[in-house]
Amino acid sequence: MPATPTTRRKPRSDGLRSRETILRAAASLATIDGLEGISIGNLAAHIGMSKSGLYAHFGSKEELQLATVETALEIFDAEVVAPTAGIEDPLERLRALCASFFAHLERRVFQGGCFFASVEAEFDTHPGPVRDRIAAIQRGWSMRLQQLVADAQARGELRDDEDPAQLAFELDAYMLMGNTSFVLHDDPAFLHRAADAVDRRLEAAARP
Amino acid sequence: MPATPTTRRKPRSDGLRSRETILRAAASLATIDGLEGISIGNLAAHIGMSKSGLYAHFGSKEELQLATVETALEIFDAEVVAPTAGIEDPLERLRALCASFFAHLERRVFQGGCFFASVEAEFDTHPGPVRDRIAAIQRGWSMRLQQLVADAQARGELRDDEDPAQLAFELDAYMLMGNTSFVLHDDPAFLHRAADAVDRRLEAAARP
Repeated sequence: MPATPTTRRKPRSDGLRSRETILRAAASLATIDGLEGISIGNLAAHIGMSKSGLYAHFGSKEELQLATVETALEIFDAEVVAPTAGIEDPLERLRALCASFFAHLERRVFQGGCFFASVEAEFDTHPGPVRDRIAAIQRGWSMRLQQLVADAQARGELRDDEDPAQLAFELDAYMLMGNTSFVLHDDPAFLHRAADAVDRRLEAAARP
Repeated sequence: MPATPTTRRKPRSDGLRSRETILRAAASLATIDGLEGISIGNLAAHIGMSKSGLYAHFGSKEELQLATVETALEIFDAEVVAPTAGIEDPLERLRALCASFFAHLERRVFQGGCFFASVEAEFDTHPGPVRDRIAAIQRGWSMRLQQLVADAQARGELRDDEDPAQLAFELDAYMLMGNTSFVLHDDPAFLHRAADAVDRRLEAAARP
């Protein structure tokens, strides 16, 4: 069957706008019902669009899931990472990045907490392109934390005997546990507990 | 078999046996497809039983989910908690409990890592009896860790200025992060990293 380009012939800016609307709704819904829970049918119902309209944007469920992950990453970058981009000092930026992560949870950027924590737990056992992309994003986040630790060591702010991978893992552990407890028990006190853990750990790693 | 009565009727024990078989399969499947992914239909197919046979055991999906959670807790208690029950020293028992948690992941007691981490991430945003039960089990686990910290403080093994709730949170964070990374990246090195974090944290909390 030949490809039919007419199905995708929409005014470009309208098409891009509705594509973004769909994907932002999908990213938020995924933190409630999972990426597998987002069918073209229930997404169409949620945003009041026809199923055929949605099919014009996404050919398959996997394509929709991958596009949703990219949109969630754009939101995460804009809400968590970008506000810290102007901070030149690496240790200060590392602290700000953790604080920014907790803040995006507390103001419910995604309905069900951290998008990536949700989809990691869902897709960790589902091999394929979606899991691969999620795992790569998680590694990228971990590398970002590790690089800031290494930069802070090079500046003499953190002890040289700290392993950047180990320290980044522990900071990430507090963030993940803070997110999980916050959402499960619906209590922001867990975010403050996690922030305390980050502060305490970075103090212990500070060069005397 | 001379000691066996001639008319052997054991509907009750047979029923209990198949109920346990069903629930153990459900608990392991839930770490792959989620508790919502366990339908009476796919579970029946997985264990080669008729749907009507399964309906005889479980009246509703929620009943099946709640029974699956209880079975997972029994498995967790037997595999993780029971092996440490004979350890009298609280700090030693706390260390053994964390080690036992990592060991049950590494030997794949559940196919998709920690059962409770999986279902917490899935049900945290789904209010109802299943989420309530999962949240209560998580609190119980956290209280168990906190009590061991408090007991170790009373024995003079851990510093008095450590907050048991904070320290338990941090230990649990390493366990959760270890589990998540182990399953997502399919690499047991993350369990060793998490175990190192536990050791390091307990050393820092040790009374000088």
